[in-house]
Amino acid sequence: MKKSLLALAVLTAVSGAAFAQSSVTLYGKVDLGMVYDAGNPVGAGKSVRLSSGVTGGSRIGFKGVEDLGGGNKFSFQLETGYCADSAAGQSTNVNDANNKKIGTTSAPNFCTGSNNFMGRQAHGDLTGAFGALSAGRQYSLGFNNLATIDPFGAGFAAQANNVSNTGTYLVDPSGIRLNNSVTYSTPNVAGFTGSVEAAFGEVVGNWKSGRETGAGVNYASGPVYAGVTYYAVNTAAGSGTAKRVTTFGGSYDFGVVKVHALGQKVSGNNGAIDIFNIMGGVTVPVGAGSLMASYVKHNDRTSMDEDANQIGIGYQYPLSKRTALYTSFARIQNHNIQGSATSNSAILVGNATDAGTGQKAFNAGVVHNF
Amino acid sequence: MKKSLLALAVLTAVSGAAFAQSSVTLYGKVDLGMVYDAGNPVGAGKSVRLSSGVTGGSRIGFKGVEDLGGGNKFSFQLETGYCADSAAGQSTNVNDANNKKIGTTSAPNFCTGSNNFMGRQAHGDLTGAFGALSAGRQYSLGFNNLATIDPFGAGFAAQANNVSNTGTYLVDPSGIRLNNSVTYSTPNVAGFTGSVEAAFGEVVGNWKSGRETGAGVNYASGPVYAGVTYYAVNTAAGSGTAKRVTTFGGSYDFGVVKVHALGQKVSGNNGAIDIFNIMGGVTVPVGAGSLMASYVKHNDRTSMDEDANQIGIGYQYPLSKRTALYTSFARIQNHNIQGSATSNSAILVGNATDAGTGQKAFNAGVVHNF
Amino acid sequence: MKKSLLALAVLTAVSGAAFAQSSVTLYGKVDLGMVYDAGNPVGAGKSVRLSSGVTGGSRIGFKGVEDLGGGNKFSFQLETGYCADSAAGQSTNVNDANNKKIGTTSAPNFCTGSNNFMGRQAHGDLTGAFGALSAGRQYSLGFNNLATIDPFGAGFAAQANNVSNTGTYLVDPSGIRLNNSVTYSTPNVAGFTGSVEAAFGEVVGNWKSGRETGAGVNYASGPVYAGVTYYAVNTAAGSGTAKRVTTFGGSYDFGVVKVHALGQKVSGNNGAIDIFNIMGGVTVPVGAGSLMASYVKHNDRTSMDEDANQIGIGYQYPLSKRTALYTSFARIQNHNIQGSATSNSAILVGNATDAGTGQKAFNAGVVHNF
Repeated sequence: MKKSLLALAVLTAVSGAAFAQSSVTLYGKVDLGMVYDAGNPVGAGKSVRLSSGVTGGSRIGFKGVEDLGGGNKFSFQLETGYCADSAAGQSTNVNDANNKKIGTTSAPNFCTGSNNFMGRQAHGDLTGAFGALSAGRQYSLGFNNLATIDPFGAGFAAQANNVSNTGTYLVDPSGIRLNNSVTYSTPNVAGFTGSVEAAFGEVVGNWKSGRETGAGVNYASGPVYAGVTYYAVNTAAGSGTAKRVTTFGGSYDFGVVKVHALGQKVSGNNGAIDIFNIMGGVTVPVGAGSLMASYVKHNDRTSMDEDANQIGIGYQYPLSKRTALYTSFARIQNHNIQGSATSNSAILVGNATDAGTGQKAFNAGVVHNF
Repeated sequence: MKKSLLALAVLTAVSGAAFAQSSVTLYGKVDLGMVYDAGNPVGAGKSVRLSSGVTGGSRIGFKGVEDLGGGNKFSFQLETGYCADSAAGQSTNVNDANNKKIGTTSAPNFCTGSNNFMGRQAHGDLTGAFGALSAGRQYSLGFNNLATIDPFGAGFAAQANNVSNTGTYLVDPSGIRLNNSVTYSTPNVAGFTGSVEAAFGEVVGNWKSGRETGAGVNYASGPVYAGVTYYAVNTAAGSGTAKRVTTFGGSYDFGVVKVHALGQKVSGNNGAIDIFNIMGGVTVPVGAGSLMASYVKHNDRTSMDEDANQIGIGYQYPLSKRTALYTSFARIQNHNIQGSATSNSAILVGNATDAGTGQKAFNAGVVHNF
Repeated sequence: MKKSLLALAVLTAVSGAAFAQSSVTLYGKVDLGMVYDAGNPVGAGKSVRLSSGVTGGSRIGFKGVEDLGGGNKFSFQLETGYCADSAAGQSTNVNDANNKKIGTTSAPNFCTGSNNFMGRQAHGDLTGAFGALSAGRQYSLGFNNLATIDPFGAGFAAQANNVSNTGTYLVDPSGIRLNNSVTYSTPNVAGFTGSVEAAFGEVVGNWKSGRETGAGVNYASGPVYAGVTYYAVNTAAGSGTAKRVTTFGGSYDFGVVKVHALGQKVSGNNGAIDIFNIMGGVTVPVGAGSLMASYVKHNDRTSMDEDANQIGIGYQYPLSKRTALYTSFARIQNHNIQGSATSNSAILVGNATDAGTGQKAFNAGVVHNF
């Protein structure tokens, strides 16, 4: 889920006359990888498939910026996912008036971004000496912190944020992207940036329902990155906290090796959620490429004790500035799996786009940024 | 719903050789505004939300033109909405074989344009000395007339075309956009342009079913705009008129103030619909910006007597050529509201994208055209 | 379904500095035609409508290529359909847990490409002295062979691949596009190119289920094209062949006339499918345009004996390099039609986008490539 390595600025002309001060940038990613899953927790067997976006979701985006004078700028970013592998559509649940599932239908599929057009990012930003104020659909502070610390950048089989069919994360990505959100970030002061965010639940008659609020501070300078983020989500009633997540950690690049470490506390629902996750990893330059490895421990501190741990490894080899080959492998061990014959709490090895079908997965593919 | 202030022509090259005579233009709009609604007619309470497109729907478009020689040109315009605020999807009804609602599902959301990709506009045009012939999905003559006369350009809280949950418009927008339509417009002669339109119902075995036909004449010269449009929609049986709408009015720009006036007669369904709407408004330059205000009276002349009136005010302040801040407020008074506890005929204050949830609304936001 | 006549290369700059060796190309097609259908096989009557894509689906695409050095390149192509005529949405079936239809809903419509965003083509390609290796969603070898031989290029009323409501093709297009597919093609050697393809069914626990495999060889040189393709689709159980299709034929351009001939054998389901199709056609330069005509014979060799034959004619007249007017007519005679009052096996005259509603159709429209 790294940004495009190279954004291509579409040269633009005003009224056919001269080059404009403003520009719209078209960018994107094509990621196609073979995935082999094993260790399906309900015995459904192995899976071999082509996946659109193992290292990061395949996407097309449009960015623009306008100088408002006085050091201020307006910018925007619109980014849609698409499926690079298939047009098979997305199976979607149909519910009756009581919100009980009565069947399924198929809808167009964008593969990432909550299956919506421009669902990956859509925001407008005012920036200046005061900092940056952004509104729309955007990455959460918590996810940006996690993806920066994770040696796999929240992609590949070995991503720290693998998830179960029932929604339990190995490392909680803090919502990934926030709908209807407003974020303010301070200017960078001696490497430090502070940010606050709020995402509105937009329930008529209860503006606290489902509302998310968060904050973070990070430090980035030379070989060092360190960040801490916190966010909380209100219950549907708006009167309590459904989930609160604190994520802290960082990385240090020694040159011959970059080390990564993360801790995360997840709680909420009056004590029904109580999890502590830790992750340690390395990135090592090997040949022209990079070798990544990490270990994650997911400690469920409730009486359910649904612990899990993951080991993962990967290698990315650049063919050029914008194209790379990659491979990765990860294995999760789940303990005290709860659930039914068709759906359970076992955390599966997925990737940046697919949820995965087994507790082991192997990936090999190619990613191109444009 | 104004056009992009500045379209960016993407410079193009033929076979990597030289610049082409032809070009494709990429353009769009990002509009993000906070909306506060009050006066929900069924007591559901207030709403605070981020809206994608208060002054006009957020959009991305592609336009192109080719010179055919002899003064003729082929052009096209493809314009899609997108949600600048959220990827929450669109709740969609599920109906059984008898067309009775049995549940709901969620589909990708484009926020405007009937929730379809390229649903805002998609048409091809042949233009020349003979005039212009356009086919596809395009704005109705009636909507173009209304949006030109309305000081709010069919956007903001105070737009003339606010609507109830049950589909009654304050001022009827005449279909806004027409599917499967063909439009012919004469050349501009001394400021006058005449147009005719037809939109096919495309029902197998009955080509009159649901067919729309319309016509209009307008005059635009210096400070003056005046226009009259008429359209009628056939019943499903194709043998009668479900609705006919005549919209007439104009604006005159005195410099210190621009005045706007509109009248509209809506009838149909053998007398079950009989409405007369009037609107008066002003646009006043204030500082670097524009102050807009209007009053609308919706007179239901049937025995239901569901009258309504709206007062609205707004201000738009340009930060640059392509970015502006805006705010607006409108209040609707509904009389003799009909309906149930969950759905009634009260006309609500919405905006160019949202239907609204109350009889009062306040907007404040930013709009950027690219 | 021909490629854009003129692809417009969007000139790109790296980091605002100099022109890049790489480029992203934006291209597309706008096709709008009136369609008149008659001879509905269940007596539903005639249909008059505006169609988006009579000669080929209306589309927007993005292509890019990067030089990897050593004679190797990475390229990609992302192509979405859109509806140039309407934003009416797509009626979609809703099924219960037993896969029985219980109702319908509406989803966004892309008109072609299995109704998905980027559903027409989405693939990444590695090319070099070794040939070309492509992965993603791409045209089948069989369809490319058919569309090259068909004088109508798998478009217009008279396309060879017209189809019934129940899924029987006049000439089988061999899947048109393949999801989750990998294709390898040899370099062109003295006019010959060989290719193999596989498309994964991606069923967990059974990687043979629904898998498609195919191969082809073609020769193209000067006035000659000749090609033979074969493909087979596994059953859902993965243990047998649901369908196998062999398509062979070619064309020779004598200058005053180009002749086209095709044979096709379709079998499978343990003998339940046994069809032999033949097509003969001509393309004749007439004035500045081209006259196309073909005859197709569909011979059902099972005891059902549901034979059909089609005669078709068309004319395309270029207004410019990128814009053309067209007209076409086709009539199908079906024999021994099987089925119910609302759905039967009669093959209907459609076009590149619409399935059609009758056994005769007339088209007239305009197509523009950008």
